[in-house]
Amino acid sequence: MKIIVIGATGTIGSVLADALEANPDHQVVRASRRGTVQVDLAEPESIDALFAAVENVDAVVAVAASGQLAELADSTDDAYFLGLEAKFLGQIHLVRHAIRQLSDGGSITLTNGISTFTEPGLSFAAAVNAGLDGFVPAAALELPRGIRLNAVSPGWISETLAALGRDGSAGTPVAEVVRAYVALIEGSANGRVVVP
Amino acid sequence: MKIIVIGATGTIGSVLADALEANPDHQVVRASRRGTVQVDLAEPESIDALFAAVENVDAVVAVAASGQLAELADSTDDAYFLGLEAKFLGQIHLVRHAIRQLSDGGSITLTNGISTFTEPGLSFAAAVNAGLDGFVPAAALELPRGIRLNAVSPGWISETLAALGRDGSAGTPVAEVVRAYVALIEGSANGRVVVP
Repeated sequence: MKIIVIGATGTIGSVLADALEANPDHQVVRASRRGTVQVDLAEPESIDALFAAVENVDAVVAVAASGQLAELADSTDDAYFLGLEAKFLGQIHLVRHAIRQLSDGGSITLTNGISTFTEPGLSFAAAVNAGLDGFVPAAALELPRGIRLNAVSPGWISETLAALGRDGSAGTPVAEVVRAYVALIEGSANGRVVVP
Repeated sequence: MKIIVIGATGTIGSVLADALEANPDHQVVRASRRGTVQVDLAEPESIDALFAAVENVDAVVAVAASGQLAELADSTDDAYFLGLEAKFLGQIHLVRHAIRQLSDGGSITLTNGISTFTEPGLSFAAAVNAGLDGFVPAAALELPRGIRLNAVSPGWISETLAALGRDGSAGTPVAEVVRAYVALIEGSANGRVVVP
């Protein structure tokens, strides 16, 4: 399969691109905001440009950047609505573009996150992540030509927690998260949001 | 209580404003996009202007307009992303403004909708409605001064279905939907999304 990994320089994206590339059946195109193959999910035109530059794509995976804490009351709009353009609208734009460009039977795999919180500062993250949870199965009802749509909701990554000096065992190892993406790309699931 | 009903000219909003006004303990301010007291949730500045014009508000209720079918593949961005500005971002903007303006112990009640569908054409509605489902309980963790936040998810209204020539008994009578809003405004619930 020819697979575009969007966000291929990140914690998950780099390991995912390596894992896919280790399979001789796959050809991996590493895309990111800065790099040889550029795309910024916050700019819909760059998604079109990506598919114009890379042809005959079978699968596209978006491994979005994570958000950050923003209080409901005190944040500026820019800080509070972080994630709106790239993670929420950007991934939806990606689906709208990809279904016109992918090969028959291709797949789209998005990245989602936790949507239920017990600590403050995550209300817009909850809106974005719950929104994508609702979008994926509803959009899967409309995909043409056998194209499939799924998402992985990675939660905290063990390696990220450890790097922050916290307990890595409270998270999921990046290798396990990557296996969830690979299973969705190589399998037959459709309309699912998988928590590894 | 002094209560602002945003969307007071709509199917639910007009009945809700009448029901609240029938209680001599309440003073109702009817706001809508066109009318004496104007507000457009798609324009955050108009929300600020509303609270500047109407003081000492105890409760605000948003009864948003419903969306419409838009196919993932063939809709223009404007048609597809309908609901983004007013229903999704607008209601979140309303919460961010209202928590600075409402009286202590006041309440905010939003309008949400169904987020799980089995028919095509509703993928962005699913994203918006699921997103608000995630937002309400997460935002409720951060409300100052005893302010409460809830939402009603009305689904189909019997009277609307009947007007469309469909089976009204498949929906919920508007009077029952209105009772759900009134219960949230007058009660003590916080962080809940109620399906009447």
